[in-house]
Amino acid sequence: MKQYRATLDFLLQHWLRLDELFSRERFADHSQDTVTSVLDTCERLARDKFAPFNRLADTEEPHFDGERVHLPQATHEAARAYAASGLLAAAQPYEVGGMQLPFTVQLAANGFFKQASIAISAYGMLTSANANLLMAHGTPRQREVFAKNEFAGRWFGTMCLSEPQAGSSLSDITTRAVPDGDAFEADPLGPRYRLTGNKMWISAGEHEITENIVHLVLAKIPGPDGRLPPGTRGISLFIVPKRLVDAEGRLTGERNDVALAGLNHKLGYRGTTNTLLNFGEGWHLPQGAAGAIGYRVGAPGQGLRCMFHMMNEARIGVGWGAVMLGCAGFEASLDYARHRTQGRPVGPAGKDPATPPVPLIAHADIKRMLLAQKAYAEGGVALAVYCARLVDEQHTGTPEAAEEARLLLEVLTPIAKSWPSEWCLEANSLAIQVHGGYGYTRDFPVEQHWRDNRLNMIHEGTHGIQALDLLGRKVVMDGGAGLKLLAAKVSETAQRAGHVEGLAEYGNTLAAALQRVGAATKSAWATGVPEDALANATPYLQAFGHLVLAWLWLDVALAACAAVPLPEPRRQGTLSAMRYFFDHELPKIDAWLRPVAARNTLARDMRDEWF
Amino acid sequence: MKQYRATLDFLLQHWLRLDELFSRERFADHSQDTVTSVLDTCERLARDKFAPFNRLADTEEPHFDGERVHLPQATHEAARAYAASGLLAAAQPYEVGGMQLPFTVQLAANGFFKQASIAISAYGMLTSANANLLMAHGTPRQREVFAKNEFAGRWFGTMCLSEPQAGSSLSDITTRAVPDGDAFEADPLGPRYRLTGNKMWISAGEHEITENIVHLVLAKIPGPDGRLPPGTRGISLFIVPKRLVDAEGRLTGERNDVALAGLNHKLGYRGTTNTLLNFGEGWHLPQGAAGAIGYRVGAPGQGLRCMFHMMNEARIGVGWGAVMLGCAGFEASLDYARHRTQGRPVGPAGKDPATPPVPLIAHADIKRMLLAQKAYAEGGVALAVYCARLVDEQHTGTPEAAEEARLLLEVLTPIAKSWPSEWCLEANSLAIQVHGGYGYTRDFPVEQHWRDNRLNMIHEGTHGIQALDLLGRKVVMDGGAGLKLLAAKVSETAQRAGHVEGLAEYGNTLAAALQRVGAATKSAWATGVPEDALANATPYLQAFGHLVLAWLWLDVALAACAAVPLPEPRRQGTLSAMRYFFDHELPKIDAWLRPVAARNTLARDMRDEWF
Repeated sequence: MKQYRATLDFLLQHWLRLDELFSRERFADHSQDTVTSVLDTCERLARDKFAPFNRLADTEEPHFDGERVHLPQATHEAARAYAASGLLAAAQPYEVGGMQLPFTVQLAANGFFKQASIAISAYGMLTSANANLLMAHGTPRQREVFAKNEFAGRWFGTMCLSEPQAGSSLSDITTRAVPDGDAFEADPLGPRYRLTGNKMWISAGEHEITENIVHLVLAKIPGPDGRLPPGTRGISLFIVPKRLVDAEGRLTGERNDVALAGLNHKLGYRGTTNTLLNFGEGWHLPQGAAGAIGYRVGAPGQGLRCMFHMMNEARIGVGWGAVMLGCAGFEASLDYARHRTQGRPVGPAGKDPATPPVPLIAHADIKRMLLAQKAYAEGGVALAVYCARLVDEQHTGTPEAAEEARLLLEVLTPIAKSWPSEWCLEANSLAIQVHGGYGYTRDFPVEQHWRDNRLNMIHEGTHGIQALDLLGRKVVMDGGAGLKLLAAKVSETAQRAGHVEGLAEYGNTLAAALQRVGAATKSAWATGVPEDALANATPYLQAFGHLVLAWLWLDVALAACAAVPLPEPRRQGTLSAMRYFFDHELPKIDAWLRPVAARNTLARDMRDEWF
Repeated sequence: MKQYRATLDFLLQHWLRLDELFSRERFADHSQDTVTSVLDTCERLARDKFAPFNRLADTEEPHFDGERVHLPQATHEAARAYAASGLLAAAQPYEVGGMQLPFTVQLAANGFFKQASIAISAYGMLTSANANLLMAHGTPRQREVFAKNEFAGRWFGTMCLSEPQAGSSLSDITTRAVPDGDAFEADPLGPRYRLTGNKMWISAGEHEITENIVHLVLAKIPGPDGRLPPGTRGISLFIVPKRLVDAEGRLTGERNDVALAGLNHKLGYRGTTNTLLNFGEGWHLPQGAAGAIGYRVGAPGQGLRCMFHMMNEARIGVGWGAVMLGCAGFEASLDYARHRTQGRPVGPAGKDPATPPVPLIAHADIKRMLLAQKAYAEGGVALAVYCARLVDEQHTGTPEAAEEARLLLEVLTPIAKSWPSEWCLEANSLAIQVHGGYGYTRDFPVEQHWRDNRLNMIHEGTHGIQALDLLGRKVVMDGGAGLKLLAAKVSETAQRAGHVEGLAEYGNTLAAALQRVGAATKSAWATGVPEDALANATPYLQAFGHLVLAWLWLDVALAACAAVPLPEPRRQGTLSAMRYFFDHELPKIDAWLRPVAARNTLARDMRDEWF
């Protein structure tokens, strides 16, 4: 975690100028000192309570004895220690028990836990996200009873969106919510419904870490004809607690009808329970009637809107997990390469077997793989903290700055989610490769990183969904305002690089790449027909992501050149990673943009029977 | 396996013209009918005895009770059924119990077993490779006693190269072999030595499937000063049976001093035991003395040469495993995409949620991922059978043709090994992606394919080693003769495409790509300094591999256009996969060649402390 911490300190202080936030009213109590102290605490907690048990959480997979789900004791202790630290509400205001820290700091602090154990960290992350949503859309009572108890770590939370037959296509969910008779209006916790249906892929859906679990559930309210409204507009949002509580948040002693139908056995991320939950199947009859009791959040039909209000942060969070796994693999393989000896470098006279073997890191190809990991993982750190900084700007900046941040975030979020999930997975593969055969064994941590990271291209919207979001919505919305704004930022960095010795050529390369992405965007939409534009949305997403990362690397390199004093190894390392990205990675965009610009119809035209 | 079989039949009959081989003396007893019958048998055997137990072999990992290694009963039965079928000696002459089949047919037939269960199939593959080596380099007695009993499936074999401290760098092995006193010259099984040392990563190194295990072990014979000779030239090769046998191949009842030091617990390939073996540590005292008894094969110091004699076939075999895992994932995800419904395609008016969901395969992005898998996996099939056909040519062609085949094989082998291990792994990742969340669970086979396939970039020479072999040796050896020959073949395909409607543009693109690879090769070696050329050997390997695959795809497409009668879906599918490769994949070579051509020094210049 040392490597990550050093990168983080550099980026927050010298690149993002985090100190500028402390002059804002919301963050007035904070300073570089409080940030340092929060990061120190988290680094220690992650190192002591999470990292030593990451492998254990993988091998001792959650199991269900028919009544309870069992997790390693270490997972209970780590999750509770995290809750006890107050981090669940780190960015929340004081009045709900929060620390009122910038979101950027919360994200940075959470990085340590994700690096130490992505699976154990998920319980806390989901709980924060759930409670944050309630803070934005719940009634005062819902916030008081549910959100505050989650922030306090008394209860943990989940997000219940997918169903066995409806993953990417939420419009097809069939979980049903009907008003609960007289209780509909009489319950102080909100408009009360009875829910029936099945929810799939629910992380942290069942466990005994906390006395209660607060499920946030998407469901449809049937129309007067008893039929569920089609499409996403018919979706509403409900709080469905595992155990019923009264208006003061006390457990009533009654079980709600939320039943574990099964645990999913996964490739990775095994320390997080992942469940199929049945709502209202009759395992329990809360208050003597059928159906799981749920309290509506927000207006009917506004469920997806409420969920999507938090979506940017949730998606940045998924990308952030991918980044931190990338950092974990990078650190592990860097350490291995420094200490393991093997072979001799190629010299002018070949190799001299009489000389002793050298550390792996002396080989050019090993350094290439470490540089690639550095470029992916630390580039990912820059991407995530940049986006987090925009979230802070959106919430606490001037109206103008806030609007600009919002627009940029719209365009960058699919990248923040997808890019690390693809390239930090590749980093994890390279970390295995640096270890050779040892990396393929479970005696080293890198194979687990790779398995854990494979999830990130799937959950919270698959790669394909992110691609449709980017090319189908984000770059064209508001007349392309988001794209124009991003282009202005990229151009500005390219121009600044033009005035710095050694960086000018990279500025020109970046400007040219921006041109090509812009031209391909236009070509894709030239006919105005969505099928034409979107058939190659995924390669577009890949090219766009690499452009964004090249921009950020050059921007970070500018900061490294400007920052005084900066230790020479940090400056050289930053410049080398930037150059690696420009020399080896950025040129890939042409291959991705080619089918986009040509509106290549190959995939569309392909027929089932031709496979 | 249906998909693979159909592709195979097309490639062998319409592209490779396998029937031409049957006019050669060695294969005179064979015909298309015998080939069909062998393939039918293998397909059935793989389907019945291997495929149903692939997951079991993964979950019931080998375990050691202190005395014996336990494997699932199904693994025993599958391995024995394979041996009983006679396939271990499929390409061997009749006089040693072989079927005298073309190597191409043996490889093709083995594909079914690799697709069905790569881990279970490894026992047989290793045994064949071991016995083949003895056929080439053993004494008549060694062949009679060891090779024949392996071909008969009575004993299985291993290859013991790596040591805990020496994997890629075989020159650093320290296993020691000293002449065994008077027995050195008196043992009919060969010059007898006593071996001491440790061997790591030994697949099938311990099991109870067969009554004996024949280890082929690399070790060094100390010089007069008692020191081991440095470098690879000091390496010799030894047969070290687990249990001692007499000159007639009967077990003497005595255990040799080969002891299991531990099982490696791997990310994938779990059904194959992988071991650390101790030789001569004193667990047993065979014939009353210390040291494992071993019989030298070939001359002293010629061990690596003997091993490398089989290396092309072994490396093609590793790539072939990667290909067949790619085929396995492709078939599984194609099947899933045809039957799983989700969402609606984007239409001119967006999506209509009132219409029923469509099968996944109706979405352009899903078809893109299936096309990519088809291009990778079936391209890999073409690559492997092409190389296998060259092996046959090398062994049974005219002297001129044999020499040409040898040269081509030298250049193509690093590609046949590395390209599938990288891109069919990517295919497996796409197979997971097509499945969405389900693909991330162990309820579907695709996550196991992906885990299993990750090994192939590591064993039998890592990616980096293949890259040094290609750019450092193969493209420059014999004054570049191999590269020139390959270039002539590629040009010839490009020219033929020029005369076929619809293919001419691909011919031009291929010729241009060949030019760029040639120019980059020259630039890389322009200074004549190996460090300059080889610093970017891995991107060179990647570009070279994509060029080779583009060439093969165009050549296969030409065959599909020429072949009559060919079902239209096969022709369209072949053309679509070829186009996919040219539209989406081949353009990537420019990004890889750039640092090669520039002799980019970034990785070389990077310093440890800058990370």
